[in-house]
Amino acid sequence: MSELRHDPVQKRWVIIAIERGRRPSDFKTPPLETRIVRTCPFCPGNEDKTPPEIYAVRPDNSAPNTPGWKLRVIPNKFPALKIEGDLNRRGLGLYDLMDGIGAHEVIIETPDHNAHIGTMPTEDVLEILKAYRMRISDLFNDKRLRYVLIFKNYGEAAGASLSHPHSQLIATPITPRTVATELDSAREHYLAKERCLFCDIIHQEKALGDRVVYESEKFFVFCPFASRFPFEIWILPKQHSHDFALTDDETLIDLARTLKITLYKLRVALNDPPYNYVLHTAPNYHVFRPGRPNYWQTLPYDWHWHIEIIPRLTKIAGFEWGSGFYINPTPPEMAAEFLRSVKIDDLDL
Amino acid sequence: MSELRHDPVQKRWVIIAIERGRRPSDFKTPPLETRIVRTCPFCPGNEDKTPPEIYAVRPDNSAPNTPGWKLRVIPNKFPALKIEGDLNRRGLGLYDLMDGIGAHEVIIETPDHNAHIGTMPTEDVLEILKAYRMRISDLFNDKRLRYVLIFKNYGEAAGASLSHPHSQLIATPITPRTVATELDSAREHYLAKERCLFCDIIHQEKALGDRVVYESEKFFVFCPFASRFPFEIWILPKQHSHDFALTDDETLIDLARTLKITLYKLRVALNDPPYNYVLHTAPNYHVFRPGRPNYWQTLPYDWHWHIEIIPRLTKIAGFEWGSGFYINPTPPEMAAEFLRSVKIDDLDL
Repeated sequence: MSELRHDPVQKRWVIIAIERGRRPSDFKTPPLETRIVRTCPFCPGNEDKTPPEIYAVRPDNSAPNTPGWKLRVIPNKFPALKIEGDLNRRGLGLYDLMDGIGAHEVIIETPDHNAHIGTMPTEDVLEILKAYRMRISDLFNDKRLRYVLIFKNYGEAAGASLSHPHSQLIATPITPRTVATELDSAREHYLAKERCLFCDIIHQEKALGDRVVYESEKFFVFCPFASRFPFEIWILPKQHSHDFALTDDETLIDLARTLKITLYKLRVALNDPPYNYVLHTAPNYHVFRPGRPNYWQTLPYDWHWHIEIIPRLTKIAGFEWGSGFYINPTPPEMAAEFLRSVKIDDLDL
Repeated sequence: MSELRHDPVQKRWVIIAIERGRRPSDFKTPPLETRIVRTCPFCPGNEDKTPPEIYAVRPDNSAPNTPGWKLRVIPNKFPALKIEGDLNRRGLGLYDLMDGIGAHEVIIETPDHNAHIGTMPTEDVLEILKAYRMRISDLFNDKRLRYVLIFKNYGEAAGASLSHPHSQLIATPITPRTVATELDSAREHYLAKERCLFCDIIHQEKALGDRVVYESEKFFVFCPFASRFPFEIWILPKQHSHDFALTDDETLIDLARTLKITLYKLRVALNDPPYNYVLHTAPNYHVFRPGRPNYWQTLPYDWHWHIEIIPRLTKIAGFEWGSGFYINPTPPEMAAEFLRSVKIDDLDL
């Protein structure tokens, strides 16, 4: 069982994977030759190389864990957190810890090993988003889980260990600190102004215009004012909405198109860069926590779900680690201008 | 002039380097061939390739900006922040920004291009620490500056763009968020218990013993309980001390030996890994900030300077970026055991 440990100095939780402890020799990178995956476990025909599927899109009604699927959701073979057991919250002198309870799943986005969201058919992108929606809804039924983080690592420099297109989901028994900080900011803003912070940001960015990347009927895409990274991009629904899992089909189709266009622009502008994206939806606001703010009362008003996209173009060095303060060599206005200029006329939407 | 921009969502400042905006084509990594530095600007004889030195150790009394030095401090040729000008604090609708005022310096640690702190003579390590102490003291006279962060990037994967041994210093007009969080935790602990949080951690880690890496007369070296990264190591003075710049010579000699031993152990255990270290000393507590906590009153009691060392063995992926929540595959107890087992008998101390 892995452990969740709380850092009393940084007030941050860390997952310590006790079981499969990596020893010093595990960090010596093997020569590239031996690292090439001869058989991709995510490709059709290799379903037996993954744990049994949790969910799949099978237009041909093929049997589970056989070929014929368009998308599969499977448990991670080497999960950071496991679903079985109790949290077993405890202290150790100054420190706090609990057992590594949660979920760690992989969304295999398509059978096509070489697909890219920026160029795949829009209906396939829609299936990915539907899988996200379904898994969040399902996991929120587990009251031990406080948050479901969906993210994608694209390219080795972005942390992807397999190149077959996939996203991941980690459900955690705490609300991760980055999200908690955003929740606090949004709530503080709402309590002061009775307006959503993110709605205010959209309003201002529309008025200023110089950081806008793209706008669809229902979504707003821009480079944030204080972008940490070159070509950082956020996608927000224009209509205030706190919970991604409540998104209706019509809005999801618009999002599929918008995500595709955004990632296409990124791919063209930066020559297929590695990137990460994360979905910041609401925490599991149905969970009652004695003595805590009653999030389910204000979240529908103050929280606004969004997707953050981070191309991995620069190395993070000692200054950033030591300070939490980023140096971004590309002003977001310049990044947005480049991204706006990428033509999407040839894109099949 | 670069800008400091405040993220209203993450409540985090970012340095946006407006002037030398990197365009998409700047991110296409040139082939390795053309990237080899033919002439190292930090090597003796190339003093004219760097800005004029701010400070140097010259046992032979040689002239500034000529060979003969043992250590040089120079302004960064491409500074993220500049010392001239006013902060010019202002708002832009929802957002806050100020001009990029500060200092960005490079400490060239030795004339020897191939030296490593883990094996260089202890008196040379001492000169590096003396340079840190001197530069912090000097920059704290500038009341616009709130913090001086000293850090080292070793190896390309750790963000070092030049291999010649060097550290860097960035002085900022804000206290970086990571440090601010640590300051808040330490103050909260002190106000509740009238004890230093870090002194309590040392006390507990000594009693438990399983995360201890090394102990000298005056310093305590251990892998923190909630290590974010495999083989993360902290070095703390055993005697409570808030301001690195007030360290006396005798303590600094012990630190030189301790830092050398720690980095030697890391080098041997992990086969010369890339790493970052950062010094978390007190902020510029002499600066009066109306309406803010009076740090100069409590800091001598609640803050405890320390060095954090982070080997760069794993890639940071979407989950970590999106959540601020780390997955560490090596329990700190295992890391400490490996590091303890590295013999230092052959080391010339």
